[in-house]
Amino acid sequence: MRLSELQVGDSFTGFFILKNIRNLVTNTGKPYLACAAADASMMVEAKVWDYAGPIGPADEGKVAKIQGVMQEFKGAPQIKVERIRMASAQDAYDLSDLVPVAPMDRDAAYARVESVIQTMEDPDYKAVCLEFLRRHGDRFKAIPAAKSVHHGFVGGLLMHTSYMLETAEFLSRLYAPIIDRSLLLAGTLLHDFAKMEEFTVSELGMVTEYSTRGQLLGHLVMGAQEAAEVCKLLDVPEQKSVLLQHMLLSHHGQPEYGAAVVPMCAEAELLSYIDNIDARMEIYRENLEKIEPGTFSPRIFALEKRIYNHG
Amino acid sequence: MRLSELQVGDSFTGFFILKNIRNLVTNTGKPYLACAAADASMMVEAKVWDYAGPIGPADEGKVAKIQGVMQEFKGAPQIKVERIRMASAQDAYDLSDLVPVAPMDRDAAYARVESVIQTMEDPDYKAVCLEFLRRHGDRFKAIPAAKSVHHGFVGGLLMHTSYMLETAEFLSRLYAPIIDRSLLLAGTLLHDFAKMEEFTVSELGMVTEYSTRGQLLGHLVMGAQEAAEVCKLLDVPEQKSVLLQHMLLSHHGQPEYGAAVVPMCAEAELLSYIDNIDARMEIYRENLEKIEPGTFSPRIFALEKRIYNHG
Amino acid sequence: MRLSELQVGDSFTGFFILKNIRNLVTNTGKPYLACAAADASMMVEAKVWDYAGPIGPADEGKVAKIQGVMQEFKGAPQIKVERIRMASAQDAYDLSDLVPVAPMDRDAAYARVESVIQTMEDPDYKAVCLEFLRRHGDRFKAIPAAKSVHHGFVGGLLMHTSYMLETAEFLSRLYAPIIDRSLLLAGTLLHDFAKMEEFTVSELGMVTEYSTRGQLLGHLVMGAQEAAEVCKLLDVPEQKSVLLQHMLLSHHGQPEYGAAVVPMCAEAELLSYIDNIDARMEIYRENLEKIEPGTFSPRIFALEKRIYNHG
Amino acid sequence: MRLSELQVGDSFTGFFILKNIRNLVTNTGKPYLACAAADASMMVEAKVWDYAGPIGPADEGKVAKIQGVMQEFKGAPQIKVERIRMASAQDAYDLSDLVPVAPMDRDAAYARVESVIQTMEDPDYKAVCLEFLRRHGDRFKAIPAAKSVHHGFVGGLLMHTSYMLETAEFLSRLYAPIIDRSLLLAGTLLHDFAKMEEFTVSELGMVTEYSTRGQLLGHLVMGAQEAAEVCKLLDVPEQKSVLLQHMLLSHHGQPEYGAAVVPMCAEAELLSYIDNIDARMEIYRENLEKIEPGTFSPRIFALEKRIYNHG
Amino acid sequence: MRLSELQVGDSFTGFFILKNIRNLVTNTGKPYLACAAADASMMVEAKVWDYAGPIGPADEGKVAKIQGVMQEFKGAPQIKVERIRMASAQDAYDLSDLVPVAPMDRDAAYARVESVIQTMEDPDYKAVCLEFLRRHGDRFKAIPAAKSVHHGFVGGLLMHTSYMLETAEFLSRLYAPIIDRSLLLAGTLLHDFAKMEEFTVSELGMVTEYSTRGQLLGHLVMGAQEAAEVCKLLDVPEQKSVLLQHMLLSHHGQPEYGAAVVPMCAEAELLSYIDNIDARMEIYRENLEKIEPGTFSPRIFALEKRIYNHG
Amino acid sequence: MRLSELQVGDSFTGFFILKNIRNLVTNTGKPYLACAAADASMMVEAKVWDYAGPIGPADEGKVAKIQGVMQEFKGAPQIKVERIRMASAQDAYDLSDLVPVAPMDRDAAYARVESVIQTMEDPDYKAVCLEFLRRHGDRFKAIPAAKSVHHGFVGGLLMHTSYMLETAEFLSRLYAPIIDRSLLLAGTLLHDFAKMEEFTVSELGMVTEYSTRGQLLGHLVMGAQEAAEVCKLLDVPEQKSVLLQHMLLSHHGQPEYGAAVVPMCAEAELLSYIDNIDARMEIYRENLEKIEPGTFSPRIFALEKRIYNHG
Repeated sequence: MRLSELQVGDSFTGFFILKNIRNLVTNTGKPYLACAAADASMMVEAKVWDYAGPIGPADEGKVAKIQGVMQEFKGAPQIKVERIRMASAQDAYDLSDLVPVAPMDRDAAYARVESVIQTMEDPDYKAVCLEFLRRHGDRFKAIPAAKSVHHGFVGGLLMHTSYMLETAEFLSRLYAPIIDRSLLLAGTLLHDFAKMEEFTVSELGMVTEYSTRGQLLGHLVMGAQEAAEVCKLLDVPEQKSVLLQHMLLSHHGQPEYGAAVVPMCAEAELLSYIDNIDARMEIYRENLEKIEPGTFSPRIFALEKRIYNHG
Repeated sequence: MRLSELQVGDSFTGFFILKNIRNLVTNTGKPYLACAAADASMMVEAKVWDYAGPIGPADEGKVAKIQGVMQEFKGAPQIKVERIRMASAQDAYDLSDLVPVAPMDRDAAYARVESVIQTMEDPDYKAVCLEFLRRHGDRFKAIPAAKSVHHGFVGGLLMHTSYMLETAEFLSRLYAPIIDRSLLLAGTLLHDFAKMEEFTVSELGMVTEYSTRGQLLGHLVMGAQEAAEVCKLLDVPEQKSVLLQHMLLSHHGQPEYGAAVVPMCAEAELLSYIDNIDARMEIYRENLEKIEPGTFSPRIFALEKRIYNHG
Repeated sequence: MRLSELQVGDSFTGFFILKNIRNLVTNTGKPYLACAAADASMMVEAKVWDYAGPIGPADEGKVAKIQGVMQEFKGAPQIKVERIRMASAQDAYDLSDLVPVAPMDRDAAYARVESVIQTMEDPDYKAVCLEFLRRHGDRFKAIPAAKSVHHGFVGGLLMHTSYMLETAEFLSRLYAPIIDRSLLLAGTLLHDFAKMEEFTVSELGMVTEYSTRGQLLGHLVMGAQEAAEVCKLLDVPEQKSVLLQHMLLSHHGQPEYGAAVVPMCAEAELLSYIDNIDARMEIYRENLEKIEPGTFSPRIFALEKRIYNHG
Repeated sequence: MRLSELQVGDSFTGFFILKNIRNLVTNTGKPYLACAAADASMMVEAKVWDYAGPIGPADEGKVAKIQGVMQEFKGAPQIKVERIRMASAQDAYDLSDLVPVAPMDRDAAYARVESVIQTMEDPDYKAVCLEFLRRHGDRFKAIPAAKSVHHGFVGGLLMHTSYMLETAEFLSRLYAPIIDRSLLLAGTLLHDFAKMEEFTVSELGMVTEYSTRGQLLGHLVMGAQEAAEVCKLLDVPEQKSVLLQHMLLSHHGQPEYGAAVVPMCAEAELLSYIDNIDARMEIYRENLEKIEPGTFSPRIFALEKRIYNHG
Repeated sequence: MRLSELQVGDSFTGFFILKNIRNLVTNTGKPYLACAAADASMMVEAKVWDYAGPIGPADEGKVAKIQGVMQEFKGAPQIKVERIRMASAQDAYDLSDLVPVAPMDRDAAYARVESVIQTMEDPDYKAVCLEFLRRHGDRFKAIPAAKSVHHGFVGGLLMHTSYMLETAEFLSRLYAPIIDRSLLLAGTLLHDFAKMEEFTVSELGMVTEYSTRGQLLGHLVMGAQEAAEVCKLLDVPEQKSVLLQHMLLSHHGQPEYGAAVVPMCAEAELLSYIDNIDARMEIYRENLEKIEPGTFSPRIFALEKRIYNHG
Repeated sequence: MRLSELQVGDSFTGFFILKNIRNLVTNTGKPYLACAAADASMMVEAKVWDYAGPIGPADEGKVAKIQGVMQEFKGAPQIKVERIRMASAQDAYDLSDLVPVAPMDRDAAYARVESVIQTMEDPDYKAVCLEFLRRHGDRFKAIPAAKSVHHGFVGGLLMHTSYMLETAEFLSRLYAPIIDRSLLLAGTLLHDFAKMEEFTVSELGMVTEYSTRGQLLGHLVMGAQEAAEVCKLLDVPEQKSVLLQHMLLSHHGQPEYGAAVVPMCAEAELLSYIDNIDARMEIYRENLEKIEPGTFSPRIFALEKRIYNHG
């Protein structure tokens, strides 16, 4: 049972993420808890009347077990909570019921990424990629690629990267005479790895904020720094190290989109396009499923325009 | 023998394109002909002393047979012409020695384009594509895709389009759930067809100017108009006709790059990226071969930056 | 009696347009209807207590007869509805009481437009104009020129076009040596005709949305397409057809304001200025009447600034 | 006889403006004078062999009497001067043969300006206009409106202003309900008056440079300052003085085009459009006469585009 | 006692500024007064039940004595007013408790400004400065430098200007060879003086609006006009007057930030930087005190970014 | 004796830098050497007739001893070389006669920089600064700060940095409550250190090109990388390391001016202003000395405007 499937009047019991938690007092002086309960389908305002604790703002983003009734207040759904407690280690619930998860087989995708790396001709770039996977492989499989805009779900970074690797592989063959395939694949694999450090990720795997380091340095520079460090560790020639750093530093394409330098070789140029294409196609995918065929969406912030679902 | 292979002092005889033709008079009152002789390798200033005609500005862009000596004037090469006459129908010379030609097998590429069209699932878009090939197939195979920027050689439009079709085919599978493959392929095939009408093409197949109609309407609008007309002729449903026109009208991506409307469906979005990628990769290809490995190019106008040849 | 003239406590009966219709339920489980009632003067929130139908969202934008009392809720006016039913064909009410209408004699304005067309020296442009009027004259007289920004009322397109024709007539004489008067007048008359197809217009004549075709192609391209078609039908020389299409395609002046091509002849340049002037003067007119003399307006979105009423 | 009508080999005698004057020495050590001779039709390089003075750089922009022969050097015309001396007060030549002059009857135009001012309803604005004419009427009739871009000829400011007054008059009637006709006419008359102080004008009436004051303050601010001063002198009410100053300060429309403030009343808005229209129409006029019918101009710097002469 | 220190349930009596005053009626028809009470610490919504006057919208921005209880409504603080009356001349309260005041000794700062002026080497610029202080010294000490963005408190203009004078003094010595110290100091002192005329200031010294004159001319142009007038009065040489006017007209640095002309001498260039630095440092100061060390602010509108408090 | 002091006809002997070297052949087949001879005052074209070597393009940028005569060719100075040979280690000439050198005592400036560092309160930032000086102090004293724009002379980086440190010191006291003085001073000292690695510097100390690494990574990122490395080496706390890197990465202020991230703390904000001020003041200094008092410069590329020398 998902929140989005409940009707006004339905009673239910289940596990939900608590958000926007406030301990308040009614006009008549009685304490109550106002919060929102969320699962992967939607978020609903909730009220726990005559409630003085222990749940409070410190439980933001954690899972609670709730028994309640779905009601309506001013035209919007609202939960009247009858019983509530925080979930414990003993509780059995499924993560993917609570937070959105990439619509793909994550293990298969990761295996495919690894096998593409194995085909890289250049031993230096290959070694760098393997070292990065060794260091960060587990988190790479898990974290979202963004707070919201696109791929904002568990496994988002893996999904984004693995799709991009497919396109990089294809284009490195189409434009083979001018593309160093290993460089393009390495840059593609690593381009967003530093997002792991740029984001603050909640217990449940969602991005909640940007880290201090992430905001003051940015994932482009952080990624280039780790690439430089790994290259030095593995005795990769300076020229290759610089090219790989250049891929990461320039992958946003234009300074006004955050690139620290503009792409100055064909592989860096391609990487910025491949990144853009996958981001935009995912934005279309996430939005098209909410648009009635034959109609237009409202203005989509990340695209700065409305889009059409031709069905 | 190509102009670029001649040394100062070399005598030669051959066929060349005449450019920048002027009938002038020396300080001492003697008539002479100043012009440039060009083949596919380079263009060299030429002087025909004591020459009063018949060759003159009306022969601009035509082929002449020249016997002369390569000299140097102020550090630049210059041809002293000993004999000159316009080429006639009886003369045997090879077009590809005189003008740059796409570095590919044009017949094979055209056949590949045709076979991709044959795989289109949607009978309407397929019929439109076939009608366009029937109408314009021959010129499509021949004309350049631009005056200079990129693909500015015989067969350039075919080369540009066939590479783009490969990528369109690939991406239509990668993003299959949200892409109408037939629509994407049809838009890709037809996106620049109206360039045939936008350009004025010389006898030798090079773009010399833009046509009046081409400048006042633009190839996006002209392409959409013919698409609309063909769709009506073939009884293609209005909805499909509009989508196909939208693909052509929006393929420059942004108004400031010439798009008449912004892309509003996933296929149109992809088309503008595929177009950009192929244009840029070709600019890299054409420039990288002039850059010493390990060095940077001068500023490239079309890219608004310098690029690096990592060799 | 208009909504804007009612005081808190006033009872009234009248015809109004229903908007934003929702069938809701109170906390105590009773059904009620929430909607807004609008006439040409303003829009007011309304509540029909203990009401379960038949009126519902499907009646959006239609006319209903309402008997009610004007009240106040949280500082804003609100109607307590006592009786409500949808209007029928038998009901007698005046359209101009319900929707805003151009402040001019529409028949006279239309006659004036026709007589200006009759003075055109060029028989081809004249024939094209007459054919457009024959095809679309009735709707041309009726529809608004926009959803809101300016001329967003019944007869708006006619008002906008007829004012512009006056200015075009004047400037074609002032700059006679470089202006083809017939071309300027034809472009001016036809520049926004395709808005008829770009908008979705409600039963009551107001613009409610943009059509799919309108959004995917835009009224500039649609207008040019019909102009091309009519020119072909009437055997207008190609050169004139292209110029007329160019007028329509370029009349927004700059790509970033939606022009498919930039104006490249003096008539097209003038048309874009004439369009802008009339649009801006109408925005001033509509806003000045809301501003106290000697004071400034709030920021006006369409002008990106505040304006001053010097009284 | 004009320079543009001379053929190679023609001998001639006449008055010309000297430009770009340099006293030089040949390789063999002989002094000669290099300069350019200009009349209203064109400018031609000239050489005076074996010439040691007295003419030199100090005579820049002045008139000389020249006897010479038209020759050709490296494909460009060049004058071989046989005799040369500076013109004196006794010499009879016609200014309009030497510098370009507005193609209109300047006295009639000035009279028309005066008569329009006489029709102004508002006595204050009228008095201000008359005072400005009294102070600057003579120079107003004479100076160009620009160094080159448009109206860069004797009488240019008068021509520009008188055309604009026609349009202002027309639009003040079309939009009568929201336009204070006197304010619009006054702003139009005075908008560029301070150019008289912004330019440095040569003996022959052409703009040679911008004055220090002109560059540091700009003609918008200088115009507003004199308007404020004249208003105070004539006891014009503060409110009217401020509005008139606002017209002058904002007439470039946008900050990036030099407006000190953006137009905030309908009259100021109109003025900036009227100014633009007349400037652009004059740029078209000056360029169209150089373009073959049916062809495009080269890129015109002031318009940032090519234009088409449809003949 | 400040509003920000009160807890829910606290009773209090004090003087507050009234804002957003509305005389309303409850659902049951009883009149009441809704307003906000503000002091220098915060603003709180307030309700006076069963109240029919005399206090009403005309008292906006004035001081009232209020006896009430702090309550909470929908999670936000709200005052239940028990007694209220407007303050009279006899009431003793401290202005700095009610409105924010510059965190500095204003008399000392003003004295320091005067003593810096006394050190100016150039007698003309010095005389102009002294005349401006003589005319406007009192208001200069009192008014804010802005409505909100930065220095939006009593004494704000003095604080802003005196900090800038310190920096101007320092930089005039560091770059002594190219800086006219007197010109830089004079421009700095006077750059915002016309804000006194640009703002409408409330009884309590806060900026409530922009004046008509202020909006139509701007403080740059108004300042330059008064500078020109004072220079003429004091027989300052024209060249110095123009330079000083240029300083004021250009101090926003770029046309898009409101500069009437761009800075064209080193002093004007410096002034625009000094102005920017002090404005930005004050925005940081005002915001940093609201940010927890080690965290980021929300997006700050005036900076178009978030900022970090490193503690 | 400097080149700029020679008159036509003067004979001279001296040391000069060779530039733009070409081994050419006359029309009559005789070899000659064309090059330019430069000293700190200017660069003059030179010809060595009947010269077949050994000097050639490989000697670009090196010093030669030349005996010759100053002549004039087409109005420009030209040297007729009589004797030429490359300089050897035994030759005694003064560097500052050949290349421009900072107009300051470099040893004193360096000592002052060191003493400011010694006053830093924070031991970590101080240690980082000292380590950077230890590593790069010598080159820091020598290299220019740019190829041309400003400070393009020997010692330019030291001059730029030492002036900035003065201003940083001053502003850190003026805005003491919100500025960490040590952080600001450290960021100021190190902000351009990586230019040493970004430039390719000639034997004579002038910037000839950008290095590959410099162009692909940029001096902002390279500087931050070395700062990170040094911080790790010296066990500087992570928080301080990140702040220092942020200073370097953001010191260009805006992405479009090359900042990898925007400044997000007050010290980074100040640094970008201090950098700008010193750069602009130096551009003024270098240009003002070429402008006649009371006149304007031609358009200065780096400032995008003309400037005025008020003398």
